[in-house]
Amino acid sequence: ALKEVLNDVPSADIADMLLELPGDIAVVVFRLLKKPIAADVFAEMPSSKGVELLELFNKQQLSDVMVNLEPDEQVSILEELPGHLTQRVMNSIRPEDQRQLKKLLGYPEESVGRLMTPRYVKVKSDWTISRSMAHIRNFGETAETINVIYVVDETEHLIDDLRITHLILADPDDHIESLMDRSFEALSVYDDQEEAVKMLAKYDRVALPVVDSDGVLVGIVTADDVIDVAEEETTEDMQKMAGMEVLDDYYSQTTVFGMVKKRVRWLILLFVGQMLTVTAMSSYESVLASAVLLSVFIPMIISSGGNSGSQAATLIIRALATDDIDSSDWPKILKREVMSGLMLGSLIGIIGVVITFAWGVFQGEMMDQALFLTSLTIGLSLLGVILFGNLSGSMLPFILTKFNLDPAVTSAPFVATLVDVTGIIIYFSIAILLLSGTLL
Amino acid sequence: ALKEVLNDVPSADIADMLLELPGDIAVVVFRLLKKPIAADVFAEMPSSKGVELLELFNKQQLSDVMVNLEPDEQVSILEELPGHLTQRVMNSIRPEDQRQLKKLLGYPEESVGRLMTPRYVKVKSDWTISRSMAHIRNFGETAETINVIYVVDETEHLIDDLRITHLILADPDDHIESLMDRSFEALSVYDDQEEAVKMLAKYDRVALPVVDSDGVLVGIVTADDVIDVAEEETTEDMQKMAGMEVLDDYYSQTTVFGMVKKRVRWLILLFVGQMLTVTAMSSYESVLASAVLLSVFIPMIISSGGNSGSQAATLIIRALATDDIDSSDWPKILKREVMSGLMLGSLIGIIGVVITFAWGVFQGEMMDQALFLTSLTIGLSLLGVILFGNLSGSMLPFILTKFNLDPAVTSAPFVATLVDVTGIIIYFSIAILLLSGTLL
Ligand SMILES: [Mg+2]
Ligand SMILES: [Mg+2]
Ligand SMILES: [Mg+2]
Ligand SMILES: [Mg+2]
Ligand SMILES: [Mg+2]
Ligand SMILES: [Mg+2]
Ligand SMILES: [Mg+2]
Ligand SMILES: [Mg+2]
Ligand SMILES: [Mg+2]
Ligand SMILES: [Mg+2]
Ligand SMILES: [Mg+2]
Ligand SMILES: [Mg+2]
Ligand SMILES: [Mg+2]
Repeated sequence: ALKEVLNDVPSADIADMLLELPGDIAVVVFRLLKKPIAADVFAEMPSSKGVELLELFNKQQLSDVMVNLEPDEQVSILEELPGHLTQRVMNSIRPEDQRQLKKLLGYPEESVGRLMTPRYVKVKSDWTISRSMAHIRNFGETAETINVIYVVDETEHLIDDLRITHLILADPDDHIESLMDRSFEALSVYDDQEEAVKMLAKYDRVALPVVDSDGVLVGIVTADDVIDVAEEETTEDMQKMAGMEVLDDYYSQTTVFGMVKKRVRWLILLFVGQMLTVTAMSSYESVLASAVLLSVFIPMIISSGGNSGSQAATLIIRALATDDIDSSDWPKILKREVMSGLMLGSLIGIIGVVITFAWGVFQGEMMDQALFLTSLTIGLSLLGVILFGNLSGSMLPFILTKFNLDPAVTSAPFVATLVDVTGIIIYFSIAILLLSGTLL
Repeated sequence: ALKEVLNDVPSADIADMLLELPGDIAVVVFRLLKKPIAADVFAEMPSSKGVELLELFNKQQLSDVMVNLEPDEQVSILEELPGHLTQRVMNSIRPEDQRQLKKLLGYPEESVGRLMTPRYVKVKSDWTISRSMAHIRNFGETAETINVIYVVDETEHLIDDLRITHLILADPDDHIESLMDRSFEALSVYDDQEEAVKMLAKYDRVALPVVDSDGVLVGIVTADDVIDVAEEETTEDMQKMAGMEVLDDYYSQTTVFGMVKKRVRWLILLFVGQMLTVTAMSSYESVLASAVLLSVFIPMIISSGGNSGSQAATLIIRALATDDIDSSDWPKILKREVMSGLMLGSLIGIIGVVITFAWGVFQGEMMDQALFLTSLTIGLSLLGVILFGNLSGSMLPFILTKFNLDPAVTSAPFVATLVDVTGIIIYFSIAILLLSGTLL
């Protein structure tokens, strides 16, 4: 009974369920599943759980699962495997599939080659529609999509893509040639997988063909896999933007210790960076000693710069990641962000002057020149710090891109640390300038 | 010549090009495009540019573009229109399409109903395969996908989905019934569009059917549109997480002034929140006056808490957004994050003790009890602040969810501000406890 029930539940839901069970019990449940469903379920598992199960499968189970996976799924499992399992898993696959799999694994990590599947339908331009339809009937079953049919020449070069609807509606005696416009979008097998996300988002397709450097059709990338890649890549970007290393697996599948490892390096780096604030602060120790009041405003001032920096960095990183702007656009954006930094800084600066003045009066200070100049110091520092935060937040992503680094590494904590140090210097410089003779 | 060249370029690329041109020139280029291509190009435009063009189109051009759009594209254009254009644009559409369009616009904003298209292929269970294939040939041309065919009963209730490959491979005299397993996944028309992203990511489809509250099939949601929604929703989440309001359009399409409007409210709110640090600092003014050295470490200590808070908040917000964890998982996560907070805090705390001690010696301080106790104060404060940052960063998203607010509003700047205030209190409390009698 369990067996029948299980085989009617969608694979993704069975995978969710098995995730909660201990490995040895999950393996028993696997035995109750039909082979293609078992493979589907396995493909939906997060990689850490997948590895745990592979260790527990017997030889027959292992091969049943691996043989029934799509080639792109085999690739994504093999690339995550610890060394001692690779050979065992590879051996469980049919020899002819092994060759294909090794070829796919030969493409760089996170490349389109690793993401694509060789299961598509291709036709030749001199075929008739009826011959093509017969071909689709024969090979469409294993193809991942038949919404789009690809046309290749005698040397397997991609020359067009055709919507299946056009074939269905055409006269069966016509030739493929008559439907062709020789215009198509294709990915290169060596493109980063992020390119697949951008291209599918831009051209609104359910699949895109993949060609090698000679233009030979070698596979297709399908929208369902691209949605998963988009999700992964965004999660990676967010983790980088939060000032940490990218997790190897989902949050829920990462141990506390594994999590600490991904977070600690950046925390230490940022902490060491913060020693610069200690140095900056201590170089103004005599100023601080003569006007303790000044220290009271430091957290407020430096954090305002961090806030504007975090906004700017996120806007630019995301605009770069979605191809909304280009790394060559930096001069235009510098100009924009100077303007918005000045506007935001002036506004918060004015609010700062008013609030500090009012706060001073409320604290029982005299409404004298000293209070006015202190308020002015704070207002001008806010302007300077917010402007600097905006500039570093918006320009750092471009600078990282220039050095071929991921702009997403411009994290809010990183910008905040930079602005903390600079903010202290800006604040004390203005204070010394304005307050010498009165407060200092 | 320009005309021929243009009509061979993919619509998305023409849209990119027109974006750079002034509206009146773009309108002229539009006239050179074939009607269906012009509509495609228009659908690819960001909404602000689209509105600009609609103002410039003459009556014929307006109707040519609108009539050639898919229903879901008409919806997404109409929902962004300023009031004075709505009626003009609505009137440019065929009366029978207007009715459909008004129905789609009746669904809530950001709902699956607004995202779906009514252009799909449905068959009945008692039809033969050959009748179904003839039906597909008749209606497949306008359908957005024929990879999946939907089976409805006499009252239009969805009862199954079938892959087209199964129909192609089946005996033409068989009935649809014989291919059915009566198992399918469907979206509800009132679901949030984010649900469509989650479902397509989970079930790996190129399209999902949409049913109303009675289970009647009313549309399908296709993967190409879901990729766009996923991109938009992630951008929105990132902007919220950076401590700002969501932009109405792409960064590149937003004016400097429009940008300032989206950023300034949160900056002011956070600034006002920072007045709490001023209050906290000033309540320790006498402590600061007697030991100026203490103020030197304040930026370092409070920012370390902000850093761990930013990491924790991002991990949890993203895990919630991707359904990796659930709002009911909070007790488990509280436990995890107490543990990781303790580990990270202890480690940074120990580093803090060592570095401060070394820094003190380097500054020429005596290696006496006062220096040791100061270092210890800093170490313990780091532990406390990092632990608190971790807890507030990880629990705030759950608290917001509890109040039906978007967890993404837990921004890094928001957590940092919270931790700044608390960090000051933690630091001075420990300092007073440990240093009374020596430094104080
Ligand atoms: Mg073509
Ligand atoms: Mg798109
Ligand atoms: Mg696939
Ligand atoms: Mg998959
Ligand atoms: Mg990336
Ligand atoms: Mg990547
Ligand atoms: Mg800070
Ligand atoms: Mg079914
Ligand atoms: Mg998926
Ligand atoms: Mg659509
Ligand atoms: Mg579209
Ligand atoms: Mg959202
Ligand atoms: Mg939303």
